[in-house]
Amino acid sequence: MVMTYIKVLGLWASPYSFRVEKALKMKGVEYESVEIDIMNKTQELLDSNPVHKKVPVLLHTGKPIAESLVIMEYIDQVWKGEPLLPSDPYERAQARFWAKFIDDQLTPAARTAVMGEGEDAKKAREAAEKFLKILDEEIRGGNKLFEGKAIGYLDLVGLVVTHWFPVLQEAAGKELVTKDDYPAIWAWGERLLGCPGVKDDLPPWDKLLPFFQLTP
Amino acid sequence: MVMTYIKVLGLWASPYSFRVEKALKMKGVEYESVEIDIMNKTQELLDSNPVHKKVPVLLHTGKPIAESLVIMEYIDQVWKGEPLLPSDPYERAQARFWAKFIDDQLTPAARTAVMGEGEDAKKAREAAEKFLKILDEEIRGGNKLFEGKAIGYLDLVGLVVTHWFPVLQEAAGKELVTKDDYPAIWAWGERLLGCPGVKDDLPPWDKLLPFFQLTP
Repeated sequence: MVMTYIKVLGLWASPYSFRVEKALKMKGVEYESVEIDIMNKTQELLDSNPVHKKVPVLLHTGKPIAESLVIMEYIDQVWKGEPLLPSDPYERAQARFWAKFIDDQLTPAARTAVMGEGEDAKKAREAAEKFLKILDEEIRGGNKLFEGKAIGYLDLVGLVVTHWFPVLQEAAGKELVTKDDYPAIWAWGERLLGCPGVKDDLPPWDKLLPFFQLTP
Repeated sequence: MVMTYIKVLGLWASPYSFRVEKALKMKGVEYESVEIDIMNKTQELLDSNPVHKKVPVLLHTGKPIAESLVIMEYIDQVWKGEPLLPSDPYERAQARFWAKFIDDQLTPAARTAVMGEGEDAKKAREAAEKFLKILDEEIRGGNKLFEGKAIGYLDLVGLVVTHWFPVLQEAAGKELVTKDDYPAIWAWGERLLGCPGVKDDLPPWDKLLPFFQLTP
């Protein structure tokens, strides 16, 4: 018998945990969700992700995998059913490119712009605005990866921008992503909310807001 | 007739260009290598990678792909022959995890540690030493991804550490990666140099050193 026990070490309010858990749900995979207290991390988390000591971690037959983008690739390879990544190599490269852009460039800049202080926050805001403009123009240009018809890898990544950024800015009392300035990003977010199960599974604003007000 | 024209916009001294060009060579793909002057970027580069405006870019049948890790994934999917990534999903996830660690954590810290100044350089050095220790221990622990028997995706990424870091530190006159402190990383580098064609294809130290002395 093959041991197929599947567990996610996560945090309900994390966009990175969300994408992993939602990917498993989309594949119809049953798993145990273990909520981690980030102020008091368990030994299981420290042992499973000794390099970063962060959620999410996927444990599959006892083997740990960290980094949400890496986990989503793993889920897509192991479990068939609805694909997360496009099958066409060029579209797949584009999905990976924009996911990397959102995680490595846009999100760190936006986080510092909203939660940071002084000169750091000012510089980060300039960078974040530049990155948001690039993303907005790409979506407006009609790249079909952002159609949001069937939710996939890039959409799950994009929710950090469309769902979490507005919460973060509300929590910090600083505007960054407005509907007026970035209408295409905003419209993408609305398309994503219209995809099956997304709205119901996403942690709601009224729970996220007090969490981020307490956890800068 | 399908147009299969393949072009790389690159820079001979860049570890990121190297991994892409070497991956194509390993697949037996013929391509045109276009050398970019980073002080005077061509319109073709700016048009192909408008987001980052950086090398390398792979142009395949006119379509541009940027980001070296994304390009290597694309090459591995499109051209068969020797695989770059392991086929086993767990090993594949590990290769992606460590490649991301080297590119996103270790390399930025090491670059600032060696080329930076003052407090920034000091903080970056502490981070780089921590990351190098993590990598050295992982290799020493016997993870077979670092065996360096047949060169693949992670090995091509690793060359930035084993071949370029020593040049950078020599150029800046600051030690960081020494054989004594990180023997397992050093030994990995020696195994990589022993793989077919690696030593011959790598830009040699005596050419790289004056380049990095001039280009901080």
